[in-house]
Parts: sequence; C-alpha cells; structure tokens
Amino acid sequence: MRKKRIKPDITEIREYQTKTSGLFFVVDGILFRKQSEFQLIEVVENRDYGKILFLDGLVQTTERDEYFYHEMLVHPAFGAHPGPKDVLIIGGGDGGTLREVLRHPVERAVLVEIDPDVIEAAKKYFEWLGPALDDNRAELIVDDGIRFAADTDRTFDLVFVDSSEPIGPSSVLHTPEFYLSLRERLNPDGIISSQIGSPFFHAAAIDREHRFLRDIFRIVRLYTGPVPTYPGGTWSYVFLSDTRAPLPALHPPPAGLKYFNPAVHEACFRLNDTEEVKS
Amino acid sequence: MRKKRIKPDITEIREYQTKTSGLFFVVDGILFRKQSEFQLIEVVENRDYGKILFLDGLVQTTERDEYFYHEMLVHPAFGAHPGPKDVLIIGGGDGGTLREVLRHPVERAVLVEIDPDVIEAAKKYFEWLGPALDDNRAELIVDDGIRFAADTDRTFDLVFVDSSEPIGPSSVLHTPEFYLSLRERLNPDGIISSQIGSPFFHAAAIDREHRFLRDIFRIVRLYTGPVPTYPGGTWSYVFLSDTRAPLPALHPPPAGLKYFNPAVHEACFRLNDTEEVKS
Repeated sequence: MRKKRIKPDITEIREYQTKTSGLFFVVDGILFRKQSEFQLIEVVENRDYGKILFLDGLVQTTERDEYFYHEMLVHPAFGAHPGPKDVLIIGGGDGGTLREVLRHPVERAVLVEIDPDVIEAAKKYFEWLGPALDDNRAELIVDDGIRFAADTDRTFDLVFVDSSEPIGPSSVLHTPEFYLSLRERLNPDGIISSQIGSPFFHAAAIDREHRFLRDIFRIVRLYTGPVPTYPGGTWSYVFLSDTRAPLPALHPPPAGLKYFNPAVHEACFRLNDTEEVKS
Repeated sequence: MRKKRIKPDITEIREYQTKTSGLFFVVDGILFRKQSEFQLIEVVENRDYGKILFLDGLVQTTERDEYFYHEMLVHPAFGAHPGPKDVLIIGGGDGGTLREVLRHPVERAVLVEIDPDVIEAAKKYFEWLGPALDDNRAELIVDDGIRFAADTDRTFDLVFVDSSEPIGPSSVLHTPEFYLSLRERLNPDGIISSQIGSPFFHAAAIDREHRFLRDIFRIVRLYTGPVPTYPGGTWSYVFLSDTRAPLPALHPPPAGLKYFNPAVHEACFRLNDTEEVKS
C-alpha cells in the first residue's frame, strides 16, 4: 500500500485512522521523500494545509494547523512552573515544540531526536519552524530518547515528549520504564508533558498509559485540544509532576500565540473529566 | 462528481472539507439513497462509525460519534434555564437533538423539519434516534423552519437550530431575519442554541453571524466541542438570550450522557476566547 502511494505520479495522500476511514489530502507537489534509517519521511504540498510532514504515512505537522499541537504540548507546563531554565525535548525534530519553548526565557533547550533526516527536512522546508533549530539556546542531540534519558546525568525543569503515535514504532516512548527514567531527570518542581494520542482512536492505549503514570507520578492530569489534521480532530496530552499542579496557572502564556490563552489553560484540563459524571 | 459517487458499486464516500482535503469512509453497505424534494439522502455503513447519514454529501450524523454534537447543542441551554417546558427544534429530522431534549422533564418538544424523508430514514435506520420521534411529548411538523417561525404565534422556553452548514442551501438559517423572528418566539428567560459551523473552515461565516447576532441579542456566547466526523474535528455553537447567561449553570445535566458534564459546560465557553490574548 505504501509503495503504491509514493510512486511519482501521486495525486493524493492519506492519513489512515483505521483501514476504513481517515483523512485525504490532494497533493499539489511532493517536496521531499526519503526512507531514512528509521522511517519514511515525506513533505507534500496541499492547497488547504500548505506543507505537510508525514512520517510513515502519519501526519506529523502541517503549515496551517501545527500551532494547535505545539502550543498545547508546551505552554500548560510553562504556566505551572515557577521559573524553568533547563528544558528537554524528546523527539520533536521538526522544531515546532522547540519554537514554543524558546518563546520563554529559558537558558537551555536540549532536543534529542533520533532521526537527523527529520531535522534536515524541517530546516529546509519548514521555514516557520527551522529557525528555532538554529537558536543559540538550543542544543540538538541526535540520539535515541530512551537511551539519552537512561544515560545522561543532566537534569531539567521541564521535559516534553513529542513522540509519534502510542501504537507502532513509538510505543517504546509510552512505557513505565521510559517515564521512570525521565522522572529521574527532573529537578525539584519538574514537570513532564507528553502527547498521548487520540481520545477516540487510542482510548485503550491512553487508558493503559494513564494507569501506569498514576503509579509513577503524584500528579497526572490529562488534557485535550483540537488538531484538525490528526485523527478525530482532538488530541490528548498528559501533565506529570510530583509537586506542581497545572491549575491555577502561575503566569500567563507568552504573547504571540494563536490558540493557547489563559482561558484555554483552564478549560483544557476539564474536557475529559467524564469520570465526574460516570461515578 | 456526485453522480460518480452514488453509482451502485460505490466503495467509498467522502466528506469534502474543500475540494482538496477531507474525510473518507470505506463503504460496507448502502442502506438508503434517495433524492428527496430537498436533498440527496444517503445512509451508508462503515466499519468505524457504523451507520452514517449524509445529506448532499455532508456527514450529518454517525452512529458512533453523534452524541458529541447532539449533547453539545442541547444541554448547555438546559443548564442555563430555570425550568424549560416548551421547546422548539428547527431541523433535526434525524431525531438526535430531540432525543437529548426529551431527557429533560419538558412538556412539549416541537420539531419542524422541512424534509419528511429524513424523518422516515431516521425512523427506519437509526434505531438509537428513531424512538424519540415517536415520543408522546414530541410534535413533528413538516414545514420550512423559516416559515414556521414567521407564522406561528406559539412561544418557547428553548429553541434549538439544528441546521446544516452555514454555506449552501441552509444559509437562510444563518441570517438576521431568521434570528429576529426566532427571538419573537421566545418566552421570558428564553434561550436559543444553534450550530454555526467549523471554526476552521467556516471562520468568515461564523464571524459575520456573530456580529449580527450581537446586534439582536444581549447575550451571545460562542462555544465549541469535538465532533470527529465533522470537518476539522471541532464544531462551533452559539448560545443566545436576552436574560440568561450560560454560566454558572443552574442545574447539572441529566444522567446517562456520554460527553457533556458540568466541567464541559464550564470549559466549552472558554475554548474560543482568543480575543483575551489578542487584545
């Protein structure tokens, strides 16, 4: 199926939510396509969404709607920490999470991306993301995030896990072992935020992850936000800490955001409190 | 394009957000297809979403995710009214909005649907919606909602406008004239809730509607919620009243809902307050 999709006369590319439904994008042009050591990287152009990055056939980021995901992954944790200086990003080689982190007065943002070809593609094609990758506060490390977290003795105030789906190759980033080693990397008051998939399509994986996270961290809060080009249009994240709760926020978000604001900070943690009704 | 899509060997049906992107559904079976006096009605089966109702090629409701839309359209207004007895639904011939209304102790719910074939299709194929259409508190009127609102002298505590998109044939339900006549139909403390489209794909139409609604009603509050099978995955609604604000809620929602709850009631009005940041 993938072979067929990537032939040169490709006119349409799809994100399969399942084999029987999903999103389609008519392709105006293919800018980049490479089977890297780790995954198939494709950058295509679409009239509605601009440039779209696919990894192994899954939408990672689009020019038009990327801000929803990157703002929601990053800013809730910043709002809840008294003064973060050192930040770690696992994954996120496209630079979007890093761009949001660098809106804050941090001293150092370490980005650990396993696939250097993703970083290169972002620098070349995603001019709205690439500059963050060259910022002098950013330190790019090409490595396996799991290995980095296990081996380093550095510690951080905030950690963002910008992985791909909780199913498939990225599933190792959705294990207790990984979060136990990340927890060791937190300074006092440290917070981790991770994307954990679609509340509709990955409900079982989220439920499983939520359970083991509650055994590891004292504070575990799911939150959600819209992402039009991710399956189902709503995405889930998790806020993890032993000392810091997400609400009330200690500071307002930085200026210049497109979606996240103080009201969203408060609301996003409430849109999945279905247990309140079910209990 | 439509002709091609509806031929008997249909294997896939699409909802076009634009001509160049959208959702696709592999079709397991076609249960019903009829060009009525008003629109093309199609009921198809899909493995992920169960039965799906399309009107003129646009997803109206699916078995799996319909509750998001129907709960969000109905329950915020009920939570904000001291004791609604008489309810009007404009459109909504599939019965989903009516089913949510009838969870409350109302005396009468008048449903004005222009297309009797939609009601018939719902009764026949949507067993999770159809029974509401036969409830003895429900009064079904086959008529043009605009004409009904202009001609009737009945008044209501709550009015729900369950129209289709703010572009195309349903655009007459998105005009100042229609809302002025609906306002005349409100009892003291009356509230109107309407769906007003996708915040991403219909932003200009929503903006225009929001402006004229502010000239008509003293209280105009946009709110949003997820709907996986609507374009962009997030949908917008508007709460309209001259006397009643949506928050704080006066009562909790009824038992048995799948998405809406007191936390969602509070949060859903905050997820579009982007002006707080932009100003």
